[in-house]
Amino acid sequence: MRLNPNMAATSEPPVMEARRWIEGVEFAPDRPLINVSQAAPVDPPPAPLRAAMAQFVLEDDASHLYGPVLGLPDLRAEVATQWCAAYGGEIAADQVAITSGCNQAFAAIMSTLCAPGDEVILPTPWYFNHKMWLDMSGIAAVPLKTGTDLLPSVEAAAALITSKTRAITLVSPNNPGGVEYPSELIGAFYDLCKSRDIALVLDETYRDFDSRCGAPHDLFTRDGWDDTLVQLYSFSKAYRLTGHRVGAMVTSVARMAEAEKFLDTVTICPNQLGQRAALWGLQNLGDWLAEQRAEILARRAAITQNFPKLAAKGWVLQGNGAYFAYMTHPFDEPSDALAQRMVHDIGVLCLPGTMFVPEGDASGARSIRIAFANIDAAGIAQLFDRMETL
Amino acid sequence: MRLNPNMAATSEPPVMEARRWIEGVEFAPDRPLINVSQAAPVDPPPAPLRAAMAQFVLEDDASHLYGPVLGLPDLRAEVATQWCAAYGGEIAADQVAITSGCNQAFAAIMSTLCAPGDEVILPTPWYFNHKMWLDMSGIAAVPLKTGTDLLPSVEAAAALITSKTRAITLVSPNNPGGVEYPSELIGAFYDLCKSRDIALVLDETYRDFDSRCGAPHDLFTRDGWDDTLVQLYSFSKAYRLTGHRVGAMVTSVARMAEAEKFLDTVTICPNQLGQRAALWGLQNLGDWLAEQRAEILARRAAITQNFPKLAAKGWVLQGNGAYFAYMTHPFDEPSDALAQRMVHDIGVLCLPGTMFVPEGDASGARSIRIAFANIDAAGIAQLFDRMETL
Repeated sequence: MRLNPNMAATSEPPVMEARRWIEGVEFAPDRPLINVSQAAPVDPPPAPLRAAMAQFVLEDDASHLYGPVLGLPDLRAEVATQWCAAYGGEIAADQVAITSGCNQAFAAIMSTLCAPGDEVILPTPWYFNHKMWLDMSGIAAVPLKTGTDLLPSVEAAAALITSKTRAITLVSPNNPGGVEYPSELIGAFYDLCKSRDIALVLDETYRDFDSRCGAPHDLFTRDGWDDTLVQLYSFSKAYRLTGHRVGAMVTSVARMAEAEKFLDTVTICPNQLGQRAALWGLQNLGDWLAEQRAEILARRAAITQNFPKLAAKGWVLQGNGAYFAYMTHPFDEPSDALAQRMVHDIGVLCLPGTMFVPEGDASGARSIRIAFANIDAAGIAQLFDRMETL
Repeated sequence: MRLNPNMAATSEPPVMEARRWIEGVEFAPDRPLINVSQAAPVDPPPAPLRAAMAQFVLEDDASHLYGPVLGLPDLRAEVATQWCAAYGGEIAADQVAITSGCNQAFAAIMSTLCAPGDEVILPTPWYFNHKMWLDMSGIAAVPLKTGTDLLPSVEAAAALITSKTRAITLVSPNNPGGVEYPSELIGAFYDLCKSRDIALVLDETYRDFDSRCGAPHDLFTRDGWDDTLVQLYSFSKAYRLTGHRVGAMVTSVARMAEAEKFLDTVTICPNQLGQRAALWGLQNLGDWLAEQRAEILARRAAITQNFPKLAAKGWVLQGNGAYFAYMTHPFDEPSDALAQRMVHDIGVLCLPGTMFVPEGDASGARSIRIAFANIDAAGIAQLFDRMETL
């Protein structure tokens, strides 16, 4: 079997590798597995949204048919309206596209920006699906190392830009790092990208769980923002629609026309029911989402409260926000070995830092990511009690 | 705005260009538009399937959550079982993957087979989304011209194979040509591909509407078929699930592992509700699908019956099957001009042959595609009455 060498060089999906670590492992009934490996709601959408979806299935014929490549016009308009309210600035419906999940939005926009051989700068630790897309496309993912605080440096990024650089991608609140990038930092990256005529791709999948009040950045208020900025979003987390695959991309109409070629060719249109569910959520679940955010922030606080137990053993909490806590461990073993030992010794599945950095980058070997959104405060206390015994 | 030159060189989606031709055009109430441009059911799924889907939405929590990248295990197993019954041979569940529509299956498998600069042979007229994916990926689409009967020649294909060729893609029953490839022809292409160590990608999106009885080819009965063959399928047409985006790919487990990287990175998983609908359809709608097939074959027969009206004016019917009739016209104008004139003069929207061939290929200028699945026998008679007046 002959293979595309770019695909052969692409790593396998980390979440699946981790899933294999627990295959065949038996966990004692009094100490079941604590799975903090994946950033995914384990509960279905709230009952009123499910009822609305059932009604669409039964009564709205169009929910079963092809729709526009760039998404349901009403959903695009609703995103534009709500984003204007949240961020300020001017965002029109035709600057919004709906995609089959946020990963697809990243793939689509990268395919419009980069030819094979081009370069994209990603702060490390990075989101592995971004790295995988670039690898399989023959685009170089240029790592931008962050320090202990996990925040990327604009100066360091500037030094990495070459004639082949087409974009810098930021994720805020960050996956896997959990840090919320300050508005000024995001603004400075925007200025850098604009001055160098490259795109700033800003993945805000976790924006609904940002701990700060108000707009997390002012980019949409800037003149001609859509020349430089591509914002990505996911409806999966906010409305628990992971199984329905709905994301969004906000950028210029000219870029949309190019992304449309990709989206048409890969999936023809986003699925219609998921789009209707996302629209219903935007229009009806504002209060419910505020409660969800409060709960996630309570879990984040539980991480902070319980961390002293681990700090006493030499652990360091680097980032804590969105769905994630990112921490360095005190052991003389690489994180991928530690993560597998955690499955067997304490019944905990998490992802090692090695999955979020380039091969050979020592920082990954010292870190792990805890995706804490699926365990409540009591579960977090139990998790830390177990980790204390390592 | 800097663009990936491969994307800039990719044509825009033809269906959308055609849609613009009817924007702002008023059609007389007694002569409404006959839209035969797109191969899509205009009706929703049958009521029992909609009821089953509503129940999944309300009662099956997992229908809202992430699932396996390669699809629902029960659906993969059901496809394997039904394919074995239909084609003979041995097909295991793990040789089947579910995708977000059949276009995504093509994109996924091509990304495992081809690096930029590689070549894929496509008979012309070709399916435009295949051509578009190759263009935007920097892969050369090598046209294999067909004759009046629209059947590709194995000898001509052999002469086009170079050291860069990675696959030959066939579509049978054919889109846009409507022809059903004889089993022997498909077998001969398989032999060629196997002997030259390249893949045969066989898109059978329209298999449920093949007019022939029995298996349309014997490839699955051959030893080690999965080394050479990649079969693609869509649930969109059979069960009217276009809006839910569910397709399938059947090939070797080794290739699946590579395709999984693409599928994970682009969409994480196929949407869960659509997969449950497809499974329910496979298990419960066999008789209903047989009726649908009979209706499509009746429409195909109506094309044949009505064609003499056009033949008298110099038209030639080249292919008639699946959802499509492909025909050459007698006018001294290229087909893209004719198609736009048809909108204005007779209220008919179809796609011109120019959309299915390389730029400058004269055969496209002489042909049009009629996607007849959405008009019944009476509508077909009316269509031909109008076309007779051109």
